Amino acid sequence: MHIHELDTPVLTVELDALEKNLDRYQRYFSEHGIGLRPHIKTHKTLAIAHMQMRRGAIGLTCQKVGEAEVMVHGGINGDILIPYNIIGQAKLERLCALAHHCERLTVAADSEYTVRGLSGAAAAAGVTLGVLIEIETGENRTGLTPQQAADLGQLIHKLPGLELRGIMGFPTAPAIRPLIQETLDLFDRHGLPHPVVSGGSTRHALQAHEIPELTEYRIGEYPVGGYGHLLAGRHTVEQCALRVIATVVSRPVDGRAILDCGSKTLSASILQTDHGPSIGYIVEYPDARFYGYSEEHGHVDVSACAQKPQIGERVQVLPVHPCPCVNEHDELIAVRGGQVEAVWPILARGKIR
Amino acid sequence: MHIHELDTPVLTVELDALEKNLDRYQRYFSEHGIGLRPHIKTHKTLAIAHMQMRRGAIGLTCQKVGEAEVMVHGGINGDILIPYNIIGQAKLERLCALAHHCERLTVAADSEYTVRGLSGAAAAAGVTLGVLIEIETGENRTGLTPQQAADLGQLIHKLPGLELRGIMGFPTAPAIRPLIQETLDLFDRHGLPHPVVSGGSTRHALQAHEIPELTEYRIGEYPVGGYGHLLAGRHTVEQCALRVIATVVSRPVDGRAILDCGSKTLSASILQTDHGPSIGYIVEYPDARFYGYSEEHGHVDVSACAQKPQIGERVQVLPVHPCPCVNEHDELIAVRGGQVEAVWPILARGKIR
Repeated sequence: MHIHELDTPVLTVELDALEKNLDRYQRYFSEHGIGLRPHIKTHKTLAIAHMQMRRGAIGLTCQKVGEAEVMVHGGINGDILIPYNIIGQAKLERLCALAHHCERLTVAADSEYTVRGLSGAAAAAGVTLGVLIEIETGENRTGLTPQQAADLGQLIHKLPGLELRGIMGFPTAPAIRPLIQETLDLFDRHGLPHPVVSGGSTRHALQAHEIPELTEYRIGEYPVGGYGHLLAGRHTVEQCALRVIATVVSRPVDGRAILDCGSKTLSASILQTDHGPSIGYIVEYPDARFYGYSEEHGHVDVSACAQKPQIGERVQVLPVHPCPCVNEHDELIAVRGGQVEAVWPILARGKIR
Repeated sequence: MHIHELDTPVLTVELDALEKNLDRYQRYFSEHGIGLRPHIKTHKTLAIAHMQMRRGAIGLTCQKVGEAEVMVHGGINGDILIPYNIIGQAKLERLCALAHHCERLTVAADSEYTVRGLSGAAAAAGVTLGVLIEIETGENRTGLTPQQAADLGQLIHKLPGLELRGIMGFPTAPAIRPLIQETLDLFDRHGLPHPVVSGGSTRHALQAHEIPELTEYRIGEYPVGGYGHLLAGRHTVEQCALRVIATVVSRPVDGRAILDCGSKTLSASILQTDHGPSIGYIVEYPDARFYGYSEEHGHVDVSACAQKPQIGERVQVLPVHPCPCVNEHDELIAVRGGQVEAVWPILARGKIR
């Protein structure tokens, strides 16, 4: 089936671009001896996760227990990291059950509350959970100072059911190396193990080698890029593999084109561009600008376009942020050379717990 | 089951508040003799649509064909409006098939391209599609000027398979009355029928009577409110029925609480408040402020709170915009007095086509 036969709006991924991105990043991490642990929150799709594993990924990152369940029971049952404070009986029971189905299961923690919950559940279930302590590296969300991390490490080291595996941070720009070194020094001083030092973010991925302490790296968006990566020069238009095919449904005035994709299709993630806030980039009309959106409409200023799109015409739109865009959809259409090659269910969509 | 037993994050609706909102708005429209045509894009849930119909709604508004299919085949097969330019063979065929399953099916159009497509499909399928012409009322998206609307009306009036039913606009603040009058005057001058004059938006809903020409009104958010409606004084906290129950998963520094709900749970819709952009309002901590978010984390500044939430504590969060929030979820938990009364599948979620 040709993509022109697909009804719109529809979420597609260009397989040639996807595969090259997977190869490019795997090659970098393999060359530098850093384990690549892809974050599946971007694609939420078993097929792409298996492609990542076949290329040499050391395991997966899943942000929620529900995402990990999809991946583990979908055949990727090696080494799984959930970099999240898992709290509450319901999730702890699911986590421990999942530990029976994969070789190695690790979570993140940044509080005594979290680690005592993990330990109690793991001991009761007779499983071992790995723990990475999260350090704060600049996002002002979760994570500890080096000293707090070392203190928590000593507690984890003593608690039953847990295995202290090291530290993690997000994002890990090269500038945070001293923070990592300070934390590891404190760990060493207390005799705490740290076989894993886990960095993350596609933004800084190709600088990972500038922090030699890193043993592994978590990245999500590299397989598909997006408008943000395009503007930042990390992906070319051709390398941006995730595309919403949309139709022009209205041209009420000469400079305006309304598309059948809005926030329910692209997500409400906004990129601040030189031309104002935008929800996407139109491949065929680089001079067109999203000036607004509603849930089902994309509002596009086409006044700068020499030739303007007509009603009924189809265009390809790069979303700003691939992860929330994918989360709006149930299926991802895999395309090569304009032909549909596969229809992948987005099985880990909506796994908020 | 008590709501404390639900794992978080979880989307809930307070039934007492929901029912009162449904009653309050239905009463207003009934008193003023204006048909209420609820927009199901907010709740996407059959149960609430049936509650709206039982209270006296004249029919439903569905933004996409897929949403209408869910509602019609879910038992609401009276009078359905899809206020959207339906374009392309696939959707036109589904639209005409749906016309066999409801008493009255109307769509919006703002171009010759759209109405010729509708006419061709309807004539081929042997069905009649109602058409409202959309006029531009200030959103700068779809919609025509009064003169363009009258011109398109004359074409629709001649085309087979179509029945011109009047006009629609969004939003319809009282100030746009002259535009409506001008359009209707032109329709009268050309002998065009306009039994339906359809207004819309919860923002201006209770001023609908200030435009006496309106015969019906489309509103979506009134059953549940949201943070935007709270700030605007349209709903009290108690009247905001849609709530995400979330857990505090991290308290890395004294003034910061991290919740297990981010944009994947609340949506990335942002409200500009006096305290900066926000993704939600925390019912138990009115002095707390979302200062940021990621997909799975809500970043909350609790420094202004006299008493601060602890790790493991649960809070209720009002989303900024209920429609995209609901679209992130597969289930809506209906709650009364802290007890789960029903679990409603959000069947029209993700119906982008």
